[in-house]
Amino acid sequence: MPALSDAALDQLFRTARSQNKWTDRPVTDDDLRALYDLLKFGPTSANCCPARFVFLRTAEGKERLRPALSKGNLNKTMTAPVVAVIGWDRRFYEKLGTLFPHEPSAPSWFNGSEASIHTNGFRNGTLQGAYLILAARAIGLDAAPMSGFDAAKAEAEFFPGGDVAVNFICGLGHGDPSGVFPRLPRLAFEEACTLG
Amino acid sequence: MPALSDAALDQLFRTARSQNKWTDRPVTDDDLRALYDLLKFGPTSANCCPARFVFLRTAEGKERLRPALSKGNLNKTMTAPVVAVIGWDRRFYEKLGTLFPHEPSAPSWFNGSEASIHTNGFRNGTLQGAYLILAARAIGLDAAPMSGFDAAKAEAEFFPGGDVAVNFICGLGHGDPSGVFPRLPRLAFEEACTLG
Repeated sequence: MPALSDAALDQLFRTARSQNKWTDRPVTDDDLRALYDLLKFGPTSANCCPARFVFLRTAEGKERLRPALSKGNLNKTMTAPVVAVIGWDRRFYEKLGTLFPHEPSAPSWFNGSEASIHTNGFRNGTLQGAYLILAARAIGLDAAPMSGFDAAKAEAEFFPGGDVAVNFICGLGHGDPSGVFPRLPRLAFEEACTLG
Repeated sequence: MPALSDAALDQLFRTARSQNKWTDRPVTDDDLRALYDLLKFGPTSANCCPARFVFLRTAEGKERLRPALSKGNLNKTMTAPVVAVIGWDRRFYEKLGTLFPHEPSAPSWFNGSEASIHTNGFRNGTLQGAYLILAARAIGLDAAPMSGFDAAKAEAEFFPGGDVAVNFICGLGHGDPSGVFPRLPRLAFEEACTLG
């Protein structure tokens, strides 16, 4: 396969930025279905797909999140056309019979192993959260991922049964470039990578 | 921004597949630098960039990983042109003075909070692992991410100082489509998503 075009690499990574202000342009339910229909194909271990998403599109829906938001993230979140609450299902392994059907013992891999459930659910649910960010950019949306909020409060509000752990939230919409901060530095290749 | 082309969305998500067999076509050090120069721009909270990568390109390098591999993942890993060992730095917060310079108190947010260090390091390091998978596909490489291996053994081998936790590994190369398994099912929108 050839590399994607420079414009596509810019849109996904190089010039894409986390947003703080939004234009009025809406995010439609069709956009959200298109978003899921891409991100769902991102790989997870044993295809476990533990991420669960609540897409808050209405003023009432976003108000439910308000008490969990930190002051610094309040405005950009409440004004986002859609806010995704990204969680992971603490009972994700119960679906492995459907998701990994050639290995009927797969659900039993997690029997009584809280640590393994947490590690696998959190890891793979987070991978899927990253797929959401990049799939949003791929379909022309901007993203504003945030973990600076009260996850326990959000969990009690959106997943009161305790089956889903809240991971992070992500504003979705069309960003207003006037709200973007200067790009922060990144680690040099040599600081983050070793060749072996 | 417009959506990327259908071909690009296929390459990133819809027809991209985790690989089990590889062609002889190599992955160059320039490819790895291009890969890092994309993935490094993916967002992390407070720009904390905790992921650390070891790119095993030589037979000797990959042999160091062999004792940690599970039988089912052995062949596809040892034959991959490059295997990335993806970890996260347990002292990532020490770099926030450079990475988040406008908030000099940022390193102190993590003072003595093991749980917060783990949650933030693991979450953001995993996001960066997903950025690696999708950046690889974006530059025309295939990926084979795996968590079925002995992470403690890999950590002792590659990060003996204890500063870096091993998260998952990922083969990189040009896949031989004859090794790809049939696509497994995904959860329907209604099973994974709620509109609010």
